[in-house]
Amino acid sequence: MYCFNNDYSEGAHPKILESFIQASLIQHAGYSLDTHTEHAKELIRKEIKQNDADIHLIVGGTQTNMITISAALRPHQAVIAAETGHINVHETGSIESTGHKVLTQPTPDGKLTPDMIQKTLDWHIDEHMVQPKMVYISNTTELGTQYTLAELEALSAFCRQKNLYLFLDGARLGAALTSPANDLTMADIARLTDVFYIGGTKNGALFGEALVILHPDLKPDFRFMIKQKGAMLAKGFLLGIQFEELFQHDLFYEMASHANETAAVLKKTFADCGFPFFSQSCTNQQFPILPNVLIAKLRESYEFQDQQVVDEEHTAVRFVTSWATREDAVQQFAEDFRRLAAAFQ
Amino acid sequence: MYCFNNDYSEGAHPKILESFIQASLIQHAGYSLDTHTEHAKELIRKEIKQNDADIHLIVGGTQTNMITISAALRPHQAVIAAETGHINVHETGSIESTGHKVLTQPTPDGKLTPDMIQKTLDWHIDEHMVQPKMVYISNTTELGTQYTLAELEALSAFCRQKNLYLFLDGARLGAALTSPANDLTMADIARLTDVFYIGGTKNGALFGEALVILHPDLKPDFRFMIKQKGAMLAKGFLLGIQFEELFQHDLFYEMASHANETAAVLKKTFADCGFPFFSQSCTNQQFPILPNVLIAKLRESYEFQDQQVVDEEHTAVRFVTSWATREDAVQQFAEDFRRLAAAFQ
Amino acid sequence: MYCFNNDYSEGAHPKILESFIQASLIQHAGYSLDTHTEHAKELIRKEIKQNDADIHLIVGGTQTNMITISAALRPHQAVIAAETGHINVHETGSIESTGHKVLTQPTPDGKLTPDMIQKTLDWHIDEHMVQPKMVYISNTTELGTQYTLAELEALSAFCRQKNLYLFLDGARLGAALTSPANDLTMADIARLTDVFYIGGTKNGALFGEALVILHPDLKPDFRFMIKQKGAMLAKGFLLGIQFEELFQHDLFYEMASHANETAAVLKKTFADCGFPFFSQSCTNQQFPILPNVLIAKLRESYEFQDQQVVDEEHTAVRFVTSWATREDAVQQFAEDFRRLAAAFQ
Amino acid sequence: MYCFNNDYSEGAHPKILESFIQASLIQHAGYSLDTHTEHAKELIRKEIKQNDADIHLIVGGTQTNMITISAALRPHQAVIAAETGHINVHETGSIESTGHKVLTQPTPDGKLTPDMIQKTLDWHIDEHMVQPKMVYISNTTELGTQYTLAELEALSAFCRQKNLYLFLDGARLGAALTSPANDLTMADIARLTDVFYIGGTKNGALFGEALVILHPDLKPDFRFMIKQKGAMLAKGFLLGIQFEELFQHDLFYEMASHANETAAVLKKTFADCGFPFFSQSCTNQQFPILPNVLIAKLRESYEFQDQQVVDEEHTAVRFVTSWATREDAVQQFAEDFRRLAAAFQ
Repeated sequence: MYCFNNDYSEGAHPKILESFIQASLIQHAGYSLDTHTEHAKELIRKEIKQNDADIHLIVGGTQTNMITISAALRPHQAVIAAETGHINVHETGSIESTGHKVLTQPTPDGKLTPDMIQKTLDWHIDEHMVQPKMVYISNTTELGTQYTLAELEALSAFCRQKNLYLFLDGARLGAALTSPANDLTMADIARLTDVFYIGGTKNGALFGEALVILHPDLKPDFRFMIKQKGAMLAKGFLLGIQFEELFQHDLFYEMASHANETAAVLKKTFADCGFPFFSQSCTNQQFPILPNVLIAKLRESYEFQDQQVVDEEHTAVRFVTSWATREDAVQQFAEDFRRLAAAFQ
Repeated sequence: MYCFNNDYSEGAHPKILESFIQASLIQHAGYSLDTHTEHAKELIRKEIKQNDADIHLIVGGTQTNMITISAALRPHQAVIAAETGHINVHETGSIESTGHKVLTQPTPDGKLTPDMIQKTLDWHIDEHMVQPKMVYISNTTELGTQYTLAELEALSAFCRQKNLYLFLDGARLGAALTSPANDLTMADIARLTDVFYIGGTKNGALFGEALVILHPDLKPDFRFMIKQKGAMLAKGFLLGIQFEELFQHDLFYEMASHANETAAVLKKTFADCGFPFFSQSCTNQQFPILPNVLIAKLRESYEFQDQQVVDEEHTAVRFVTSWATREDAVQQFAEDFRRLAAAFQ
Repeated sequence: MYCFNNDYSEGAHPKILESFIQASLIQHAGYSLDTHTEHAKELIRKEIKQNDADIHLIVGGTQTNMITISAALRPHQAVIAAETGHINVHETGSIESTGHKVLTQPTPDGKLTPDMIQKTLDWHIDEHMVQPKMVYISNTTELGTQYTLAELEALSAFCRQKNLYLFLDGARLGAALTSPANDLTMADIARLTDVFYIGGTKNGALFGEALVILHPDLKPDFRFMIKQKGAMLAKGFLLGIQFEELFQHDLFYEMASHANETAAVLKKTFADCGFPFFSQSCTNQQFPILPNVLIAKLRESYEFQDQQVVDEEHTAVRFVTSWATREDAVQQFAEDFRRLAAAFQ
Repeated sequence: MYCFNNDYSEGAHPKILESFIQASLIQHAGYSLDTHTEHAKELIRKEIKQNDADIHLIVGGTQTNMITISAALRPHQAVIAAETGHINVHETGSIESTGHKVLTQPTPDGKLTPDMIQKTLDWHIDEHMVQPKMVYISNTTELGTQYTLAELEALSAFCRQKNLYLFLDGARLGAALTSPANDLTMADIARLTDVFYIGGTKNGALFGEALVILHPDLKPDFRFMIKQKGAMLAKGFLLGIQFEELFQHDLFYEMASHANETAAVLKKTFADCGFPFFSQSCTNQQFPILPNVLIAKLRESYEFQDQQVVDEEHTAVRFVTSWATREDAVQQFAEDFRRLAAAFQ
């Protein structure tokens, strides 16, 4: 049984674990005030070409979303997200638990546009309704799609004009930036958003997201927020070490590329066999629409998730690869799939 | 410079890191649904002699406190703690951030008694005041003191009679249970409390607290609460592996014993030199009251924290040892201290 | 200028104000523990034919919704509402401010059905998502529509089967129960819901909603919740007096009937002139779809609100009548409207 | 049985009720956007000599405290209050329900001083603790005491230097300003605080507190906060009418003077008979320390509350007078008391 369930089934790149061992018996300052963390932040500031960005290393993604959004908003303010957005669906009401409404718009592909946001603004006009103040997007999205430079520039300009903070959830930012369809750099993202994060958990770290705060209004007292939400890791140097490893050479991009490349093999396999896709993804999540009978056969040897029922006989399913996905496993899958799929062609 | 600042300066016991490496390239189920976690839970259930306890492995202590307390209380209910309690002072209002008041009583030694709790109950009599519903204690306390079996039995009986949940924060439970002054077992604690946790972070794990829920009313839907507060680790098997290592042999107790034993050397040193203590601790935190001039001298070579100003010329300070505190460092400290202290005798 | 903006433009029925004057210089127990309140509760219990209902008189509707929902739900639980539901749109995120997500379904007419609720249940299946636990409906709805006995029975049976609380917002319950399309009694509502309220503010009281709690799980400690949310009126006897007046004779129904009857004149006027309606309402809110040019003309003499743009030249608007709407004003409007509308026929 | 329980047993001054009747059948704009409210605000701005103050009329005091404090603070910030402060004790954790800790200091007389506040600041030094940001005081306090001009000036200067908002709860501001011990004006209060409110409920209105916001940072979007907390009264003109009546002539001060004067009769009676006082109050709350036997006798004819047990045989009790306290009732009490007290002299 091989798993294409998600990109966090395995542990971490060996270099990370080696660095853990080297650092383990040394005494470090607690709560992310250590030298590894300081170094990791410098590496990231260099990567994004912004010297005055505030950077915080946080254990998980839901946590990072919750802290960032609740730190940014006053009690009556709301965040706008795609209906499929992770904060809207898969975080157990984490944002609402901090008092804020998530306003949503349906999207064809998981991506928000200025027009969609404007629709939300149009009917939030007075004090009887919440006040939209932040826009939350993900790159890549929950559907594996990604923003182009032009799209992100349009969103950024729109948000600045409307006085909305733009927050980019980069839990899968590595996959986005190493996709063949990408024309963005990390520096572009830092230039165009007010706050974003660089995902480690889903890209070869044991855990960890690097939150980058650009807008000066979002910076003050942020460590208080981290601590209050239970997210200040005592042994914060573990986060520092991981992001040092990710960014002191190109490990971050290499691992993401590997995930994308193994997913591309899957994608080609599905396409070659004539199956359509639920979304147009060039990244490490692929959503083929398959006959239920074929899905059942595949599940004898492979794990993967249902995404959505398409019709009585077909379901869109999700295959995810990771930094650790074995190339031989992907090749084996391709072979198995072509054989099983032959019956449906 | 050697640090006696805290018990989370170093990484983890080498066995834990070795297990990480062994597990790293294997695929695991996400979100603590993996087999390592299942095994760790079984080991803990055996340790506490309670087969039907619900156990959840959570990254950090503040997080565990926040989740447990907010899951247990209805909106108008409050938790009672010692004035020195960690939730009252050092968690940035985390409990209040979930909507609940922390009611406090002053204590001479960081420990709550039925009499103190009764005082709080006495003046919370109607709907114009919050309703006390949970009692929060720590073992060891913030002052390094610990509960005896008789004290915990009295608290437990009182809480059950008054229909109050009893929650024991065991961030330093290892230190408590391996102290020479201890007469409690982990099974006693499970028998006498409604919920408690076993601290990993401060006892040789990279991170992790094992929350043990005994009271049936506190069990339902607990995983929702963990997820909502951003505390469900994607790679939850990392927590499982650590608690497997801690409890499959006696590593948990061995590491805590080491911390206590090295602290005992410090304690004897202070006592031999005639200095009094701010609290009577037999565990890994020691609070001597020292002349400020001596403190300044010591800080040229050692790090440790101020606890409280005692008078114009003396301060109570805190020395903490850990599973990784080097014996030679402690011996060196003893020698240095005796030399420097000679001037004050 | 005559206002058809809403049903809370005027004060209160003269009998209420007379009772205020009579009671004003007498000393009353505070915080709704007075005899008027006790009497009002008895009258309501008689009206709903439930002797063991808990009843609380609360100043306003948003407040009542917020208190009821936050008292009923655990932190990870959510309430299901129609997309047009008042709690979703017009209460400035009040429910979210207490930590809970509002899950919505689109509806053609503002009314929820078991099928719609099932859709929400279908995709809330594990701890990564909030847990639906309460269904919120309004009678009448925001579109002036109302539930039939059969519809409410179906909803009630469904909710009981699914272990969901059914909460009916009756801010305009008077209008619903006195509508020609109604086949429900107040006792039916008490029998079929777990908690509901009887609106005073929009039916001739100065303010006040009578919350009726039927389900035993929702009763404990409710006064704590009222107080905590700032809703325990010091001079609670003012609420008692008002509901005494509403229910000791038939004032509640008389005033609502008047509102519906004056609205019926408006409805007939719009229909006679051939204009369609945005919703099929037999109650005190009417939503004709009118040409924008006609709307502009009408606004020279009448106030009323826009509901929704229908096309470039037409808008659905809202006319609301109240217990105090003057019959001559309605007749004058009918006359004015017919004259102005002639140009469009 | 005559009640000296509180100052909200009776309804409202007849002029207020008359104005209600006159306004009742007129159509008013909803949600405090009416002309009466506008006029009331102008009267108050004149009274406080601040043309650009933002003023909001809100139904109750707990509500006003909750809205003001939660609107002012970021999530990690806390409010400092006297241990006896209403927000700390008698509001069912309302402030905590919005996520904020109330930090307290013991006081001899219910009043905070810069020294006490400094003590709180001294140990809130980093992100592991909440951040004090607002100081909450009451005038009069819960013990009937009041601030002098010099005391308020000192507090104000201190708070401005420390960048703390100063919030004055004026639920009994009338009693304070008409006390013989007073040297403050309403304009002084507006000059020296950042936000305060003028209590109507406890001074002859049916309900209503006029919140006056002076500090520009506290003004934006305040109506959103009122609405979100369920405190925006649909028939807001009722609040406007009441504050019009209170301030268009001197009704506010007249009613408060009456309460103080009738309380002075009680005070003189207790003092003449040789009984000590729990606090030195010149306002409408008096706290004599009486023998328990005498208290029992008095309770055959009078209602009043216990404040605190003093010793086995004595209790401090609270007598409260109001705008409506009858002079003959006070005289009768004085006579009855002298007669009963004779046995104890």
